[in-house]
Amino acid sequence: MSVRTTVRDVASRAGVSPAAVSLALNDRPGVAPPTRARILAAAAELGWSPSRAARTLARATPDTGAVGLVIARPARQLGLEPFYMEFISGIESVLADRSASLLLRLVRDRDQETAVHRTWWKARRVAGSVLVDLTENDPRIPALARLGLPTVVAGHPGLAGSGTHAVWTDDDAAIEEVVRYLALLGHRRIARVGGDPTLGHTAIRTRALARITAELGLEAARSLPTDFSGQAGARATRVLLASARRPTAIIYDNDIMAVAAVAVAAEFGLDVPRDLSIVAWDDSQLCRLTHPTLTAMSHDVHGFGAQVTRSLFDLIDRRPAPSGPAPTPVLVPRGSSAPPAGP
Amino acid sequence: MSVRTTVRDVASRAGVSPAAVSLALNDRPGVAPPTRARILAAAAELGWSPSRAARTLARATPDTGAVGLVIARPARQLGLEPFYMEFISGIESVLADRSASLLLRLVRDRDQETAVHRTWWKARRVAGSVLVDLTENDPRIPALARLGLPTVVAGHPGLAGSGTHAVWTDDDAAIEEVVRYLALLGHRRIARVGGDPTLGHTAIRTRALARITAELGLEAARSLPTDFSGQAGARATRVLLASARRPTAIIYDNDIMAVAAVAVAAEFGLDVPRDLSIVAWDDSQLCRLTHPTLTAMSHDVHGFGAQVTRSLFDLIDRRPAPSGPAPTPVLVPRGSSAPPAGP
Repeated sequence: MSVRTTVRDVASRAGVSPAAVSLALNDRPGVAPPTRARILAAAAELGWSPSRAARTLARATPDTGAVGLVIARPARQLGLEPFYMEFISGIESVLADRSASLLLRLVRDRDQETAVHRTWWKARRVAGSVLVDLTENDPRIPALARLGLPTVVAGHPGLAGSGTHAVWTDDDAAIEEVVRYLALLGHRRIARVGGDPTLGHTAIRTRALARITAELGLEAARSLPTDFSGQAGARATRVLLASARRPTAIIYDNDIMAVAAVAVAAEFGLDVPRDLSIVAWDDSQLCRLTHPTLTAMSHDVHGFGAQVTRSLFDLIDRRPAPSGPAPTPVLVPRGSSAPPAGP
Repeated sequence: MSVRTTVRDVASRAGVSPAAVSLALNDRPGVAPPTRARILAAAAELGWSPSRAARTLARATPDTGAVGLVIARPARQLGLEPFYMEFISGIESVLADRSASLLLRLVRDRDQETAVHRTWWKARRVAGSVLVDLTENDPRIPALARLGLPTVVAGHPGLAGSGTHAVWTDDDAAIEEVVRYLALLGHRRIARVGGDPTLGHTAIRTRALARITAELGLEAARSLPTDFSGQAGARATRVLLASARRPTAIIYDNDIMAVAAVAVAAEFGLDVPRDLSIVAWDDSQLCRLTHPTLTAMSHDVHGFGAQVTRSLFDLIDRRPAPSGPAPTPVLVPRGSSAPPAGP
């Protein structure tokens, strides 16, 4: 069947107007049952399936369908993580231009996630999906490829595998930039409060930190894992500040943990940035609302979500959908970083 | 046409197996084109529309459908507002138990919002919808009632009108509690940095503040409107702190504006809570991550989203779905409130 089969072809074969085809396929009144049957038969003969028809009809209406996003994190955490919400708002900004919607589901684990994508795709509830929170050798990628579900991965192709459509952030280059900046300020003992260590981008940052601190001849940098929550960030900060060799600068894997760190420093009577430099990651509005304001790796998370979604529509519409990097995060120095005080 | 028409009826009329009907309607291989045409014709004669069929097919799978949420706020704001994200996470927690999904759309205005609900409902993409950000005499309520779309309103029945299914927070009682608390600490000059003044719950809080300050014989309280952003909250705080009669306590309509206020106070060299008491609203994780920690009206926003969604499923499943209040926010005193310093 030709991809170019249109409502007009079906109308012509059934001997009716295109409007009648639309009414019949859309389950609207105004078409007699025998005519409706003839239209459906004509559609079937041309290989014009209800779903294909629905998709085309949908294009003509305000609702052009949905794309899917499944997040395997606890529901409560979703409300507290600025990254996700900015990412979703970026997805929505592209969907709004196409009058499309986001089908969102929170699940407990990755197996459940694959099952949800399968169900959505088989029921034609989504035209494609966005995959987030990539792990190394992520089992979801071959599973969704087998389904034939158009998928764009928000994650590094080194994790996604070749042949996968991916949009990613260069976390290696970003870590290098922030460490070079801190080293230039005079910091020799840098630590990091990282995210979930099973996530691919967390692992990339951990490896990059080890590589660049070694290259620059700095002390080996500790990376403590967390679940990305402010509470876990505060706990990890207390561990680092209470350690025998207290770091003079700490890099945080998101904003909310860096906000928590400002409060922990105050709790310890430490001045930020004199006694402790703090660097946040993502640069949401939060970084400009603390005192001192937070130096951050600024990442247009909203734009990242939008780029992933544009790439997904390229794939859905069968346009070339090249994988590619999102702009690399850039360092925005603010009040929370400075040369370390002397010993 | 009988509501009880099933895949079996279509299969029997077309002289094929139910599995073949499912394959044909689901656009899967394994059915020859003439058979497919016969099945579609049989479906049409029985009034078994593609959308109805899709719904039934969906029912047989783990996916029990979707509920809709349309938010008429700028996409970027969604990423920065802890309330929405906690509310959505509460909706998702109930959906997860039913293997259902959330269909989410951001739009520019309320007219667009009604059009999206109409499209979703007619295309059978949602089983029901949640309405948020109620205004006084909200035009969406009669519009959705005319559609017959099962709807639960997250908002006060005084705004929603009788006959509307609503779950609400008693903002009047909450404002009274926080003002009585501040008055007891000795504050006589209280101000408020409120939200969008066109929203019903903002108006309810503004009226409650006027009522209770008058009742307690306090100075008339100023309420400044904002768009709920941290930036707008910071600006409003500067206006209040620079005014001739500087308030000794400020109530904020969300958490992020209260976080911004802590930084503005530091910028002015004011000590929190000695020179300025700050009360936040919603009590997300943010309130425990500042120094001092933020006194807040604690509102289980996650639980509120869950309660609204359970009520919606009662309505969809034709069980009694009584309207009712969510638990009233309770005051959680923390480090940001204290008696005012002497003159």
